[in-house]
Amino acid sequence: MEERTIPGAVISRLPKYYRYLGILMDEGVERVSSAELSRTLHATASQIRQDLNHFGGFGQQGYGYNVQYLYESIGKILGLDSGYTMIIVGAGRMGLAVASYERFEKRGFSVVGIFDRDPGKHKDVNVRGITVRGLDQLPEFLKNNQVDIAALTMPSEGAAKVTPILIEGGVKGIWNFSHMDLDVPEGVTIQNVHLSESLMELGYRMNHLPDHTKKVSASRKTAKG
Amino acid sequence: MEERTIPGAVISRLPKYYRYLGILMDEGVERVSSAELSRTLHATASQIRQDLNHFGGFGQQGYGYNVQYLYESIGKILGLDSGYTMIIVGAGRMGLAVASYERFEKRGFSVVGIFDRDPGKHKDVNVRGITVRGLDQLPEFLKNNQVDIAALTMPSEGAAKVTPILIEGGVKGIWNFSHMDLDVPEGVTIQNVHLSESLMELGYRMNHLPDHTKKVSASRKTAKG
Repeated sequence: MEERTIPGAVISRLPKYYRYLGILMDEGVERVSSAELSRTLHATASQIRQDLNHFGGFGQQGYGYNVQYLYESIGKILGLDSGYTMIIVGAGRMGLAVASYERFEKRGFSVVGIFDRDPGKHKDVNVRGITVRGLDQLPEFLKNNQVDIAALTMPSEGAAKVTPILIEGGVKGIWNFSHMDLDVPEGVTIQNVHLSESLMELGYRMNHLPDHTKKVSASRKTAKG
Repeated sequence: MEERTIPGAVISRLPKYYRYLGILMDEGVERVSSAELSRTLHATASQIRQDLNHFGGFGQQGYGYNVQYLYESIGKILGLDSGYTMIIVGAGRMGLAVASYERFEKRGFSVVGIFDRDPGKHKDVNVRGITVRGLDQLPEFLKNNQVDIAALTMPSEGAAKVTPILIEGGVKGIWNFSHMDLDVPEGVTIQNVHLSESLMELGYRMNHLPDHTKKVSASRKTAKG
């Protein structure tokens, strides 16, 4: 497939398409129209057609899209078919939540190691056969294993200190759950998950509903407890 | 402060400003220029000035921004000063990670309850004095307590079933960690945290680096382990 330069906005919608097509596959749906995709994905049918056209277009007029073919094609574009290896750095609740999330594994992201400053605190943890190693073992581990991605699920100070070790060890993608924005050299990709930003945005949107919904939101009950 | 209609893109940047200003406050920084903000936030100084002008503008030519004043003003715009009450629905690893994240509490989001289908499994859990209640107690709890936000950290099927109960109980914001897109009536706000989408986007970006960085990424070592 010939690939042109694809706008960032299109790329950030692809995982959404992929996720939704996966749900359709699980439900046994074989084909879907852009109108149906549009209803669920809250985008116009024309936008969806345009998005998918960036990749050669998978649809046929009057038939719609073959769900499995589209699912697999987008999966290839996302590189899910070749797979990624991932380590978790920080074995707190968030780190273990990420490590044990089966959906990532199903998507081709295999957790191959979990690290923590204090592995003794996590002696009983075992996520699909993986136990928690000490951070001091990280450089050696990276030397002996191909690791594509590190999920950084530790406090900010620790995250900033461990980042150079990851990069030195050949990690090419950092999935950053810490509070800090991290500096990385070219060739290393950062994807931030700042959960508190997401929560603050929810708060803002709750307080600033569009005018036509104001009546509904004004019916909010008063506090009792 | 007079408020005009603010573009969605500006709003989604506000939490980022707020987070970064909080870091500056912690470091004891009293004022900051838009040039400095721009360097850290990867936006142009002119964009930052424009963004902040939507709220009346807090800067003074040649002085920059007063960090604390700007921090508090953005906090008010985000509604953080009035505070939000939040429950966690689903006491798996992700739910407990969210429940125990102190930064949310500091931002004005107070966790007031944790619910799970199987509270017996979580008898020993105690997050800042809060124990895990059964889902069957949810309607009664919502009747007796003002709950603004529910974080949905349970599997998709469960999330779809519990959503009407939350809405019936007066919850106005749903922070959705489940795989599904949820349908809610007008007046209820959904904020999705689809972690697998974020991870897939990271994978895509790693595989499609801009041309000038290709040389760096080609130096990837081969697998050994």
